[in-house]
Amino acid sequence: MDVRVCFVGDSFVAGVGDPGHLGWTGRVAVRTPFPLTRYVLGVRRETSAQVARRWRAECGPRLPAGSRNAVVLSFGVNDTTLEDGRPRVRPQESVATLDGVLREVPWPVLVVGPPAVDDEAQNERSAVLDAGFARVCAAAGVAYVPVLEHLRADAVWRREVRDGDGAHPAAAGYERLARLVEPAWRGFVHRLADG
Amino acid sequence: MDVRVCFVGDSFVAGVGDPGHLGWTGRVAVRTPFPLTRYVLGVRRETSAQVARRWRAECGPRLPAGSRNAVVLSFGVNDTTLEDGRPRVRPQESVATLDGVLREVPWPVLVVGPPAVDDEAQNERSAVLDAGFARVCAAAGVAYVPVLEHLRADAVWRREVRDGDGAHPAAAGYERLARLVEPAWRGFVHRLADG
Repeated sequence: MDVRVCFVGDSFVAGVGDPGHLGWTGRVAVRTPFPLTRYVLGVRRETSAQVARRWRAECGPRLPAGSRNAVVLSFGVNDTTLEDGRPRVRPQESVATLDGVLREVPWPVLVVGPPAVDDEAQNERSAVLDAGFARVCAAAGVAYVPVLEHLRADAVWRREVRDGDGAHPAAAGYERLARLVEPAWRGFVHRLADG
Repeated sequence: MDVRVCFVGDSFVAGVGDPGHLGWTGRVAVRTPFPLTRYVLGVRRETSAQVARRWRAECGPRLPAGSRNAVVLSFGVNDTTLEDGRPRVRPQESVATLDGVLREVPWPVLVVGPPAVDDEAQNERSAVLDAGFARVCAAAGVAYVPVLEHLRADAVWRREVRDGDGAHPAAAGYERLARLVEPAWRGFVHRLADG
């Protein structure tokens, strides 16, 4: 059984800030009870629009015919960052972009929502995305893992983010995020392996 | 200080076989004494020619102006795999491809040679690449880390590769490889940070 998963998204997917260099993707992978080829394709500062432009070119060579392939998507926080007083991407565009990607990805997909940062106004904007992402995932029959409200209320996550760069946690925070993703991940990856 | 490094290459770069999901790149990163954004761009089965076709498109968005950027290259084993009795890539082409990439990469580069597999005839073919890679790196003023002969003689590496799929080690083998890379890596990344 040859399971390969591309994790595509932003700096949280890349695990920025984790001195253990696993991030949440490595933490869920380590606890997956069979070998898994994990391709981490998170890029710092990228918005939904930027991820949408590269997922195909980067996942293609990594997910060949003959292996059991899947994609995990996670982006959105950078969309809600203000530039000149406006979000980098308008929420309805972020949601439409995810919807478009879901229509095109030829592999099973799991979507993980945007995490919380140390800025409540930005978290409020991310909450709008979170709701929109949940809606388009439901309509597409794709599992969606909301993490924003859990992490907003998580003292460990909030402290590490605040002590860090205001956006990224350290090891314990990534462990919290991994635990939030894990139930959905387990179901997803087992269906992939058994399918 | 914002140091970002793309590790570009094959399945050994991806850390295939490591149940700890760090590979050698994660192991050297964890012991680097400052935060480092580690982008792992290893792809299974890829030859030098395939890596040469994608490094630019994948490194570009990950290494923006304003951060201290570098690339670590490692490939070659897949070139020496036989198909229809012939290596997938002829050695002089593999060496010319590395030479071409070194001429074009606009960031500081470190090159790690091909590791040993559980097939002495293939290791002999990799030894030809190893010598050629060392030669073009020297000519380009780029540091080259040969690992083939060390790993051929390393009982831990050999046992894990043999007990695995014949090519990839498990955790202890990746740790051995990380230790071989580490002296050159330390010098490389400190120059990057101080530069």
